[in-house]
Amino acid sequence: MKVFGKNYRASWMVVRGGRAIVKVIDQPLLPHRFAIKDLRTHLDTAEAIRDMTIRGAGTIGAVAGFGLAQACLEAPDEPAAFWSFVRAAYDTLDKTRPTANDLKHNLDRVVMRIAGLPPARAKRAAVAEANAISDWYARVGEQIARHGLRLIKNGTRMLTHCNAGWLALQEWGSAPAPAYLAHRKGRKVFVWVDETRPRCQGANLTSWEMMQEGVPHAIIADNAAGFFMRRGEVDVVITGADRIAANGDTANKVGTYERAVLARENGIPFYIAAPTSTIDINCRGGDDIPIEERSHDEVLFVTGRDERGGLQRVRVSPKGAPARNPAFDVTPARYITGIITERGIIPARRAAIAKLFQ
Amino acid sequence: MKVFGKNYRASWMVVRGGRAIVKVIDQPLLPHRFAIKDLRTHLDTAEAIRDMTIRGAGTIGAVAGFGLAQACLEAPDEPAAFWSFVRAAYDTLDKTRPTANDLKHNLDRVVMRIAGLPPARAKRAAVAEANAISDWYARVGEQIARHGLRLIKNGTRMLTHCNAGWLALQEWGSAPAPAYLAHRKGRKVFVWVDETRPRCQGANLTSWEMMQEGVPHAIIADNAAGFFMRRGEVDVVITGADRIAANGDTANKVGTYERAVLARENGIPFYIAAPTSTIDINCRGGDDIPIEERSHDEVLFVTGRDERGGLQRVRVSPKGAPARNPAFDVTPARYITGIITERGIIPARRAAIAKLFQ
Repeated sequence: MKVFGKNYRASWMVVRGGRAIVKVIDQPLLPHRFAIKDLRTHLDTAEAIRDMTIRGAGTIGAVAGFGLAQACLEAPDEPAAFWSFVRAAYDTLDKTRPTANDLKHNLDRVVMRIAGLPPARAKRAAVAEANAISDWYARVGEQIARHGLRLIKNGTRMLTHCNAGWLALQEWGSAPAPAYLAHRKGRKVFVWVDETRPRCQGANLTSWEMMQEGVPHAIIADNAAGFFMRRGEVDVVITGADRIAANGDTANKVGTYERAVLARENGIPFYIAAPTSTIDINCRGGDDIPIEERSHDEVLFVTGRDERGGLQRVRVSPKGAPARNPAFDVTPARYITGIITERGIIPARRAAIAKLFQ
Repeated sequence: MKVFGKNYRASWMVVRGGRAIVKVIDQPLLPHRFAIKDLRTHLDTAEAIRDMTIRGAGTIGAVAGFGLAQACLEAPDEPAAFWSFVRAAYDTLDKTRPTANDLKHNLDRVVMRIAGLPPARAKRAAVAEANAISDWYARVGEQIARHGLRLIKNGTRMLTHCNAGWLALQEWGSAPAPAYLAHRKGRKVFVWVDETRPRCQGANLTSWEMMQEGVPHAIIADNAAGFFMRRGEVDVVITGADRIAANGDTANKVGTYERAVLARENGIPFYIAAPTSTIDINCRGGDDIPIEERSHDEVLFVTGRDERGGLQRVRVSPKGAPARNPAFDVTPARYITGIITERGIIPARRAAIAKLFQ
């Protein structure tokens, strides 16, 4: 997507002299500064996933693929040493975030592609596969936009939570993608953007994306979503997903469950938008999805830009105050009107999901 | 209540030489700094209500009473001029916040007390009445604590939204008062504290009160309330109120409606705690309660303490981003299990409410 008129993806890889550098948009600096960060080894790449330099299910998936390809290039040429190095790198990358399904999905995709190859060929194949994964996400975002387009009529007021935009999916994004496409087609569309505490990815990232695309929107406190729903000012809710279980239960940024319950209470359709790579067919239901609890400082502090333009972390709580910080929640399938995937809109039901994997 | 071992109310009045100074705890500085602010004229007092130097239904009510008494002392002694001055002060104070019922209720209480008196006696009576209002709130908080105590068993995990503590009601508070009393009686109690964006009164004020009282609690992002409810870790929800309509519909800090819907969805009792002065018997239902929309900067910026200890406002949104900021929402009576008042716990039903006013 365009940033100041130039096209970017959320991450990409540059291979030179047998080594790979993973390049990512440094998301914690947005919207205050736009900067590209170079990740020079797979350990840097793992750390960038862990510390959320990049985030969002699809972008995590793409960067995980890049990271494993990068590890393959770093690995020794001797076969036993090569595989032992790659296996360790797989574990390091796999352990960075527990909830996102696209992470393991794409590590496995790279492994499947290179398994059994001699190291020299495995290295080339891993790079090709990682780039194919990134391209796949870029295509998928556009397909989600096309399938979801019928939910965004002229005048539709959509609500979204967190950032499931192109920063989270390489290109286009999932949840807001139908709104981007509707806007480009000249439809009148308005988006309510939950700020999405504690990390404020709605206020920081989704609003920034919307401004770049010129989509009319308003940032609201997460507390105000119910207010506007009850007033009849929300026509549809669309959010992304970090992991979808085989029965349609969906883990996504904490607060998604609240929006889903409120949408149903107010008769508003609630959709999940996600690539099929986010579906974990081996996970029977939401209770089996691990929920990451992140640092309490995310709740106790807020980072923003001060008057002189510098990034500043401020405490928004008493010194020594206790906190809890689950990063995700699970929305039971019964609250979900449908899942917008690159292969169409499907019901959040076991049978419909199983059909995708036949 | 105690602050560093010394007893305070949220506001009080000092009369000397025929003039009154209203003294208030400067709440926007909390929890980072504890300071008393002197309000030297009724115009200062009105501004302190408007800019939220003080907030919370009961404290607004008490400070409004002080402000009108202060105006009476400032007014000329000539009867026509006196009443014209007092009438203008009434309007100024009345217009500071549109949603809180205790504001107008207590302005009217002072007016009823002084109506028909000659100015010199009216001045003395206004001061006495304002002090009586403040004392009334202090007593009411303790009565709410006693009535609500039966909801807080040993081991109860309560969730509250915003600050309806003693800072909001002169003494004790409403929503957390039963938890304070249970804790003093040695019961094991735990409180989930919604941070309550945009102004974070939960994180800033309720957590600070809980720390002063030694009540175990955790600050959570507003988005995480539903997560802990669905996990069965919340036994009861109690919030305050800014205005209760004759049918039980209740306006309170934005996000209260979300908590009420989530509580019902999860089979958790949801209570409003408020003095009867918060009930607007002339307001037929929630749709008739005016909802204040405050500055969008409250959403676009966050104020906290930087590393050097200074108060710092940081931007948490792109420059020029649009926002919306309703300060309150209305929770329909059907979601409310009961209203904890100083006169007992009553159902949120028209008949039960009407009985209080017979």
